[in-house]
Amino acid sequence: MALLVHKYGGTSVGSLERIEAVAARVARHCAEGHRVVVVVSAMSGETNRLQALGLDLGGQAVPREMDVLLASGEQASAALTAIALKGLGVPAQSFLADQLPIRTDSAHTRARIEHIATEALCDALDGGVVPVVAGFQGLAVDGSITTLGRGGSDTTAVALAAALKADECQIYTDVDGVYTTDPRVVSSARRLPRVTFEEMLEMASLGSKVLHPRSVEFAGKYGVPVRVLSSFEEGPGTLITLEEDDSMEQPLVSGIAFTRDEAKISVRAVPDVPGVASSLLGPVSACGIEVDMIVQNLANDGGQNDFTFTVKRGDYDRALAVVRDAADALGAGPVVGDAKIVKVSVVGVGMRSHAGVATQMFAALAKENINIQMISTSEIKISVVLDEKYLELAVRTIHDTFGLEGAEGEG
Amino acid sequence: MALLVHKYGGTSVGSLERIEAVAARVARHCAEGHRVVVVVSAMSGETNRLQALGLDLGGQAVPREMDVLLASGEQASAALTAIALKGLGVPAQSFLADQLPIRTDSAHTRARIEHIATEALCDALDGGVVPVVAGFQGLAVDGSITTLGRGGSDTTAVALAAALKADECQIYTDVDGVYTTDPRVVSSARRLPRVTFEEMLEMASLGSKVLHPRSVEFAGKYGVPVRVLSSFEEGPGTLITLEEDDSMEQPLVSGIAFTRDEAKISVRAVPDVPGVASSLLGPVSACGIEVDMIVQNLANDGGQNDFTFTVKRGDYDRALAVVRDAADALGAGPVVGDAKIVKVSVVGVGMRSHAGVATQMFAALAKENINIQMISTSEIKISVVLDEKYLELAVRTIHDTFGLEGAEGEG
Repeated sequence: MALLVHKYGGTSVGSLERIEAVAARVARHCAEGHRVVVVVSAMSGETNRLQALGLDLGGQAVPREMDVLLASGEQASAALTAIALKGLGVPAQSFLADQLPIRTDSAHTRARIEHIATEALCDALDGGVVPVVAGFQGLAVDGSITTLGRGGSDTTAVALAAALKADECQIYTDVDGVYTTDPRVVSSARRLPRVTFEEMLEMASLGSKVLHPRSVEFAGKYGVPVRVLSSFEEGPGTLITLEEDDSMEQPLVSGIAFTRDEAKISVRAVPDVPGVASSLLGPVSACGIEVDMIVQNLANDGGQNDFTFTVKRGDYDRALAVVRDAADALGAGPVVGDAKIVKVSVVGVGMRSHAGVATQMFAALAKENINIQMISTSEIKISVVLDEKYLELAVRTIHDTFGLEGAEGEG
Repeated sequence: MALLVHKYGGTSVGSLERIEAVAARVARHCAEGHRVVVVVSAMSGETNRLQALGLDLGGQAVPREMDVLLASGEQASAALTAIALKGLGVPAQSFLADQLPIRTDSAHTRARIEHIATEALCDALDGGVVPVVAGFQGLAVDGSITTLGRGGSDTTAVALAAALKADECQIYTDVDGVYTTDPRVVSSARRLPRVTFEEMLEMASLGSKVLHPRSVEFAGKYGVPVRVLSSFEEGPGTLITLEEDDSMEQPLVSGIAFTRDEAKISVRAVPDVPGVASSLLGPVSACGIEVDMIVQNLANDGGQNDFTFTVKRGDYDRALAVVRDAADALGAGPVVGDAKIVKVSVVGVGMRSHAGVATQMFAALAKENINIQMISTSEIKISVVLDEKYLELAVRTIHDTFGLEGAEGEG
């Protein structure tokens, strides 16, 4: 007898057959006595189609209208899902963002949710009606439609679950949970029965595609239990919780994330004076290029040091040009780069209370003769930059080292 | 310095190139000093695509959600048109029905407009902004999205023009005006420079596809001058006005309309007692079949008569079965039908003050040996039912008889 929020992504509502499968699952949960609120994305491909139309006309410069355009995709899928539910005899009604409303700020194409009015949803639930909410969209204070950016439907679902104090927010995707690492790289990768928000947030930011980082942040902030499940098969999925699991020995490492499309840029012989980092990175950020890892060592005896940072591989050429100009202006040495690197990260809240995780990781890599180019750490993760040719070997080795392989834990 | 409402149908916004052409025309009218409100339909094919998706899931039974689904098409085209206008440097903003709002009754899929709030539009116009309104959609009192039925964007445009007291409502289509008859049948057919609302209403109801009958009715009721124009080429189009043109001799007949997809059903030897018509037609209407012409002659000496009516050809088989049952119950004679008939109508406000139009029409048909199967008249039109093989010959003959061919009148 729980109150559940179901969220279905584009693939899960990508065809009439898939929409009917969604309706069947919702109907089953209702028949089991649960109350269900459904959140849907646009049918797969639809957002890209609409976006291409808008951008072709110059929509980049008209974010308000791009939002009106893109929001129409979720409007259609919400209506179709409500129709499919009614076809199964389940009372259902679609709700668009402005019909609740879901209030956001006015930052078109990347708005943030400020408040959700739940009266209409509660009335529907009390009347035995399944509300089908169009994800991704919001309503600005001036009455304009907004959208929440890519992955925004996850955020809609989590925010709704928080506002309704739902028992669980179930995110249905095309994978059946969160894995210790990508099963395509490590065949013995294992589904995690549970993971903390902090770990999930690090993993999402570090390349795991399962959940949008903002939705994880939101879930953590409001303590919404989130479960990642497959919309194609039954299973317990992965529960993302606020609390570390006290009932058993916490594993040191929960998972290994990696990103392939990285590039690094180093500036040699940078004068060791205040303001150098901002002189070098300011122009990069001004171009809209996101900087990820930044490493600067102690100055050498000559009062100079090397300054290294990473960017997305697609931004490499632009960043290199910008930094060369900045380095010249500073009187620094040559700028060198490498676009064939990857980042591998281990994530785990267990690191907080256990020393030696980094040592163990570095030793494992050394044993395979894999050179570590950069290191960056946070409280619950360690990231290293490696030559891209070592990616699979490194991930498998680390996966082994921390004993992540093998049979599934409790589900 | 006029206030104009432009309405563009699906073909006129059917591609990015067409949308850019629409924006260019609006920009030109703005540059000439006019204030313009734009109403758009969904891109051609989009409404059919969405409708097919919805109906496949059983949307027929869920009209509220079909409206949410279908309205998304106009939402997208309104946003795209606003983007294209901004690309030309014309300030523009999309408005959905609920953002004005355009209030309707709650009859989903065929709602009627009750009230349009014009404050937001007037503010936009006063600020030099072109409002781009999503046609076809409305807002019911319970906050649901409604749609106005096929051709509904015409009604949106005319209603907006009435509410704003616009100087002209310009309907841009793929033809350059209203013709004396279909130019594909009579090559000498002539564009009418003007036509009255009554004539337009009869012609629209009788098969002329230019304007939706409800929008014409609305325009007539509120005295909105409507002009039908081509969105593909420049030209004066056809002005639809409240007043008959007093400045010149009113032609007897303005145009000839026809429909090909008719069928007739006759019940022989019907007892001449009260209630017979409703006993025969009640069951037909109950099946959702629309009955068009109805003819019943005086009873013969035996106290019996023949009762004949027409339906759309697609409804013929169902109607025949229903009427056979009803005729049996009445003790009437055999039911016979013919699905190979057409209806040809002459329309003209001039008929009001001139006798003899019917005689002239019937004589022309007789001269060509065309047998008239049924006749029905109103104050400004005469319709006849003919064997379908005579359609083209009949239309050309009547067109000639009333001197409709030849050079265009004043534009």
